[in-house]
Amino acid sequence: MGEFELIHNFFAAAPCAQGGEGVVLGIGDDCALLAVPAGEQLAVSTDTLVAGVHFADPCDPFLLGQRSLAVAVSDLAAMGATPVAFTLALTLPTVTAEWLQAYARGLNLMAQRCGVALVGGDTTRGPLSLTLTVFGRVPSAQALIRSGAQPGDLLCVGGELGNAAGALPLVLGQRTAAAAIAEPLLAHYWSPQPQLGLGQALRGKATAALDISDGLLADCGHIALASKVGIQVERDRLPLSNSLVAFLGQSGAEAAALSGGDDYVLAFSLPSVELAQLLAEGWPIHVVGQVVAGQGVVLLDACGQDITPQIRGYQHFRETP
Amino acid sequence: MGEFELIHNFFAAAPCAQGGEGVVLGIGDDCALLAVPAGEQLAVSTDTLVAGVHFADPCDPFLLGQRSLAVAVSDLAAMGATPVAFTLALTLPTVTAEWLQAYARGLNLMAQRCGVALVGGDTTRGPLSLTLTVFGRVPSAQALIRSGAQPGDLLCVGGELGNAAGALPLVLGQRTAAAAIAEPLLAHYWSPQPQLGLGQALRGKATAALDISDGLLADCGHIALASKVGIQVERDRLPLSNSLVAFLGQSGAEAAALSGGDDYVLAFSLPSVELAQLLAEGWPIHVVGQVVAGQGVVLLDACGQDITPQIRGYQHFRETP
Repeated sequence: MGEFELIHNFFAAAPCAQGGEGVVLGIGDDCALLAVPAGEQLAVSTDTLVAGVHFADPCDPFLLGQRSLAVAVSDLAAMGATPVAFTLALTLPTVTAEWLQAYARGLNLMAQRCGVALVGGDTTRGPLSLTLTVFGRVPSAQALIRSGAQPGDLLCVGGELGNAAGALPLVLGQRTAAAAIAEPLLAHYWSPQPQLGLGQALRGKATAALDISDGLLADCGHIALASKVGIQVERDRLPLSNSLVAFLGQSGAEAAALSGGDDYVLAFSLPSVELAQLLAEGWPIHVVGQVVAGQGVVLLDACGQDITPQIRGYQHFRETP
Repeated sequence: MGEFELIHNFFAAAPCAQGGEGVVLGIGDDCALLAVPAGEQLAVSTDTLVAGVHFADPCDPFLLGQRSLAVAVSDLAAMGATPVAFTLALTLPTVTAEWLQAYARGLNLMAQRCGVALVGGDTTRGPLSLTLTVFGRVPSAQALIRSGAQPGDLLCVGGELGNAAGALPLVLGQRTAAAAIAEPLLAHYWSPQPQLGLGQALRGKATAALDISDGLLADCGHIALASKVGIQVERDRLPLSNSLVAFLGQSGAEAAALSGGDDYVLAFSLPSVELAQLLAEGWPIHVVGQVVAGQGVVLLDACGQDITPQIRGYQHFRETP
């Protein structure tokens, strides 16, 4: 048995590979088999993380295990889907039992948290990279897509913005900070929490949604384009954490919230009549702007002046200064 | 717009991304949405191909486009599934329009042949590798799995064996051959034909099945292990092409058929009562052995003598002499 077959068997025996609702056949055959209940559809998304591009190399394999799955499952949250399963294609330069065990521990922990089962994959030798494909189920015609935003809708986000971008200089070892500041930022970077409950609560309410991976302004641009509307973001309504402001200052924190990547918080358009009930249910929703007729995204200050910076999405780890 | 967003848009506009039966929502949102008819299940498989490991680097991108999809879809054939869709995670060191266009041409051609639509993916910078995840639908409880082979079943394959392994010295430039010999071998290597029709015809008939990717002996070992049976392969019943025998000689051709990789021909166990009707329907089925009580795989000569070589699966391109 080759070492990559051993790895395959190692993952097949992992807790997250022990089935789950909707999994008819898991690891070990040519394909996995998933059951989709009548009246539901299957949501599918694929994400690749490459060492030195999407994460520092070397990095802590336990944290990478958590993060790699969380980032992928976040796309299911953005569709309002309920997670079912995932596949993992793992390419490794060398096989180290210690690395694999730590990676699998992080992966298992996030899989358990998200209610998702490992049903297949591939393990090969090569430069370190990970491709995860995630599967969720969503009632037919209720998935949250990007193209339904209407002028008059509120622009909302599901939590604080910019924390993961704020963590990046800490991850890269470019800066240090006191633990009280560094720890909450690093937690957002390494262990983002896919907003699955919020996504499901928004079904039939939000008119458009996505998860913020490229920064609020760039991602709002995706909604504006798909929905053929304009979007106004109000700088003074951005939800910023105390840690982020303490670390980067007010304007640095705003820049991280607007243009930093890796937040994996939901951004969505919501008719104003839907807001009160969702807030009453306790969802952490922040209104940060509105949808208008027109096109593109503008940033407004407290006086309603256009202060739009050059919008530039997060263009991969290596290119970050 | 970054160059990787341009690539994403390039693939989104490709013919194979223009929907298809079962595709509710294709490229462009956080997830694709697939519909699975009542009474059916979704079959899922993930394959990674790494440059220099699974294919020569550089290689012809058109041929790589064909082969990368065919190899993945072959797992759907092995389950008896009908292809629906696939995702492509493409990691590229540099972006070359010529390379991308040729790769997409090969991909589109194979997608059309297999009836499968590109519904999503990811494009990133890094060492060249491809991860494809394929989706098919199969009637509930009718998928061909590996674990049902019974003593008394015939061991069958769906076509000639060893041609792709025979092509490898040609692909690597280690040997040359006259076109009449080289071309059919190279066609098997670069453009394997997933046996989708045969897989579907075997539903409810074959007791176990898989597609041969690691060589007949190694893959029969997977069936034997999953089904808790023994398998006898008869050397003199191996279907070998004239080209392969002309190129490698009889014993070289037998070795390629038994232990060479990349055939992507189905191997399956079949109760003998099912054979006549399938042959009458014109399926290219060759009986190459039988399932017996016990465990493991043995190779028999014409006298029934055990001549089992040390069984060793194909262990990736780079390790091939």
